[in-house]
Amino acid sequence: RKRILITGGAGFVGSHLVDRLMMEGHEVIVVDNYFTGRKRNVEHWVGHENFELIHHDIVNPIFIEVDQIYHLASPASPPHYMYNPVKTIKTNTVGTINMLGLAKRVGARVLIASTSEVYGDPEVHPQPETYWGHVNPIGPRACYDEAKRVSETLAYSYNKQEKVEVRVARIFNTYGPRMHMNDGRVVSNFILQALTGDSITIYGSGEQTRSFQYVTDLVDGLIKLMNSNYSLPVNLGNPDEHTIKEFATIIHEMVGKKSTITHKDAMEDDPQRRKPDITRATTILGWTPVVPLEAGIKKTIQYFQGELQRSK
Amino acid sequence: RKRILITGGAGFVGSHLVDRLMMEGHEVIVVDNYFTGRKRNVEHWVGHENFELIHHDIVNPIFIEVDQIYHLASPASPPHYMYNPVKTIKTNTVGTINMLGLAKRVGARVLIASTSEVYGDPEVHPQPETYWGHVNPIGPRACYDEAKRVSETLAYSYNKQEKVEVRVARIFNTYGPRMHMNDGRVVSNFILQALTGDSITIYGSGEQTRSFQYVTDLVDGLIKLMNSNYSLPVNLGNPDEHTIKEFATIIHEMVGKKSTITHKDAMEDDPQRRKPDITRATTILGWTPVVPLEAGIKKTIQYFQGELQRSK
Ligand SMILES: NC(=O)c1ccc[n+]([C@@H]2O[C@H](COP(=O)([O-])OP(=O)(O)OC[C@H]3O[C@@H](n4cnc5c(N)ncnc54)[C@H](O)[C@@H]3O)[C@@H](O)[C@H]2O)c1
Ligand SMILES: NC(=O)c1ccc[n+]([C@@H]2O[C@H](COP(=O)([O-])OP(=O)(O)OC[C@H]3O[C@@H](n4cnc5c(N)ncnc54)[C@H](O)[C@@H]3O)[C@@H](O)[C@H]2O)c1
Ligand SMILES: O=c1ccn([C@@H]2O[C@H](COP(=O)(O)OP(=O)(O)O)[C@@H](O)[C@H]2O)c(=O)[nH]1
Ligand SMILES: O=c1ccn([C@@H]2O[C@H](COP(=O)(O)OP(=O)(O)O)[C@@H](O)[C@H]2O)c(=O)[nH]1
Ligand SMILES: O=c1ccn([C@@H]2O[C@H](COP(=O)(O)OP(=O)(O)O)[C@@H](O)[C@H]2O)c(=O)[nH]1
Ligand SMILES: O=c1ccn([C@@H]2O[C@H](COP(=O)(O)OP(=O)(O)O)[C@@H](O)[C@H]2O)c(=O)[nH]1
Repeated sequence: RKRILITGGAGFVGSHLVDRLMMEGHEVIVVDNYFTGRKRNVEHWVGHENFELIHHDIVNPIFIEVDQIYHLASPASPPHYMYNPVKTIKTNTVGTINMLGLAKRVGARVLIASTSEVYGDPEVHPQPETYWGHVNPIGPRACYDEAKRVSETLAYSYNKQEKVEVRVARIFNTYGPRMHMNDGRVVSNFILQALTGDSITIYGSGEQTRSFQYVTDLVDGLIKLMNSNYSLPVNLGNPDEHTIKEFATIIHEMVGKKSTITHKDAMEDDPQRRKPDITRATTILGWTPVVPLEAGIKKTIQYFQGELQRSK
Repeated sequence: RKRILITGGAGFVGSHLVDRLMMEGHEVIVVDNYFTGRKRNVEHWVGHENFELIHHDIVNPIFIEVDQIYHLASPASPPHYMYNPVKTIKTNTVGTINMLGLAKRVGARVLIASTSEVYGDPEVHPQPETYWGHVNPIGPRACYDEAKRVSETLAYSYNKQEKVEVRVARIFNTYGPRMHMNDGRVVSNFILQALTGDSITIYGSGEQTRSFQYVTDLVDGLIKLMNSNYSLPVNLGNPDEHTIKEFATIIHEMVGKKSTITHKDAMEDDPQRRKPDITRATTILGWTPVVPLEAGIKKTIQYFQGELQRSK
């Protein structure tokens, strides 16, 4: 039984991780500033003796005693991270420095939630961890991509210099219940559009691809990685690749409503292809995603139906 | 006449910039922590009514009133920036945030000293500003390369969001008097080795290339860029490209001592080619480097002869 800090634990991924770690009997401390997260995502644990919720912005130092840190705090969807680019960078630089400084002081192990965006608009496909990436340092996505890249660099610098134990997860597109309604990412947009009968908006041609992983698979991978002996970056994603066009059709058919599919302008620097090479995760962690797209999307549709009811 | 802050103004490039701006009659404030810089580089201005020297580490906030900021503080040579990778990143992230926060508060214009290292080990040759680069985010050079990349991202984020006026100079290899004796970069190493009769050490095959610019050319470009209306990144470098092997021979012949040329192990992730495309600087700033390699090297040899005398 460990004392575990989860930064961004009131967010989408973080709250599912809280659930798993609480079920396993650990003491869990969540630190969140509620920028994109919500108390509601973890309210079922409030009052439990093993659970603590701290309202705090990680850009400021924090002094607590823990064994492990899952460092997830950061806006994750393009509209959210572009909303305040300066803050996005501060969270992923100063915030990450604070978490590594904390880990150094108390001897904790830190897992950094990195992203497939470190590969940018990739020229190698699928993307293995050895690929250096193709990122525009001054483009609209840079506040996220470059900040995440340097947060990996920080992790390995603290590791080399201060002997902080680090794990780096390069997370690929993830979806599931508790995604924010206004998240702006493709899964929530398409499902909500289909459910409300609005037109499903494809940005650009729709020929660009993504590979979607269900959130419980990711949580499984994060826990396996944290408790492994492997310290280099590990891709966590589902290699099941689809064009955004196909994906629109899948959602359209599963929801079964009469939405039309329309096209909007392409996003600047939108990565054209993305698919993880998960050889490392498979061979080193014995991890592989198990939830098929249809099953995951079904649960997510149910979740958003509930949310729409709620907000009526 | 302006009030101008130069961070890292006691260093190699900074001190030459101080000289130029003082000669032009500006008020100049230098902020430096003397990590690689020295009071000696600017001591000829100490006591002048337009000059102020502040011993301060830019990782901590500072509150002063200025019109322009040349933000040069950062270790620059590979041995120096690898000496304390965590500190290198802090200086280029937290330090840059502080300078942009200062600029935001007082309405100053900031010039960021970026680097050709944002292009990493380039796959495009020569490198135009539109090239996104090829950088290993977790390699030994990442603490510098990635921190400089994100410091550009920070500049444009403050520009977009807070209307801070920014200039970004991507500086290519620069040499001249006041380089640190223990700098570890190729120019100082080769000249000192040749002067003392030690063997000239080429790392790897020596087939890798660099393009060397003399420091007064750079200072000229920095001032032109600062006072231009152009806010996108601008390469400042001399396109005169040489292999390191050729360069060893040039130094060897110019010093005229009996050093031998030897080979050592190659450095990890050492960029194999580097040469600036300076179309932008030429057309937009009307800038072009004017000091030929031989003339610049001659002055640098004289400088190091003096230093060797001094340290006897
Ligand atoms: N979901 C994905 O597809 C995906 C893909 C790649 C990487 N990631 C990474 O995983 C992590 C979690 O993503 P998510 O999808 O759960 O996003 P999310 O927005 O739902 O969760 C992020 C959480 O961090 C909190 N937060 C943000 N800034 C903070 C700050 N300064 N101080 C304290 N808390 C702060 C937010 O309030 C929120 O609760 C992020 O680091 C993200 O970059 C997610
Ligand atoms: N010289 C080159 O070839 C070259 C090439 C590309 C970019 N640059 C950039 O130009 C700038 C100047 O380089 P240089 O060659 O003069 O290096 P330098 O090491 O001689 O000068 C850097 C100065 O910054 C100071 N400094 C470092 N960290 C500081 C901190 N935290 N707070 C306050 N001061 C600090 C040092 O003491 C030193 O005086 C650097 O930003 C460097 O990255 C230089
Ligand atoms: O328990 C801790 C220990 C450190 N820090 C922060 O982590 C940062 C980085 O720590 P490090 O030890 O690298 O910095 P130092 O204290 O040496 O400046 C510091 O600025 C602190 O603000 C923190 O928030 N909690
Ligand atoms: O309403 C939307 C939202 C996103 N996308 C596209 O879907 C892909 C995934 O976008 P998302 O924002 O979910 O995540 P990303 O992987 O780009 O971070 C990108 O090509 C977007 O342009 C879309 O076509 N319509
Ligand atoms: O004159 C100033 C103004 C700001 N800052 C620093 O610059 C940083 C970034 O400024 P910003 O305005 O973005 O931050 P905020 O004050 O909004 O947190 C702050 O943390 C301050 O420490 C500074 O050193 N000098
Ligand atoms: O004593 C030395 C120092 C450097 N180099 C090589 O010279 C080039 C320029 O190195 P430097 O450290 O001056 O600057 P960089 O451009 O790599 O930042 C690189 O290929 C180095 O491997 C060398 O051969 N011998």
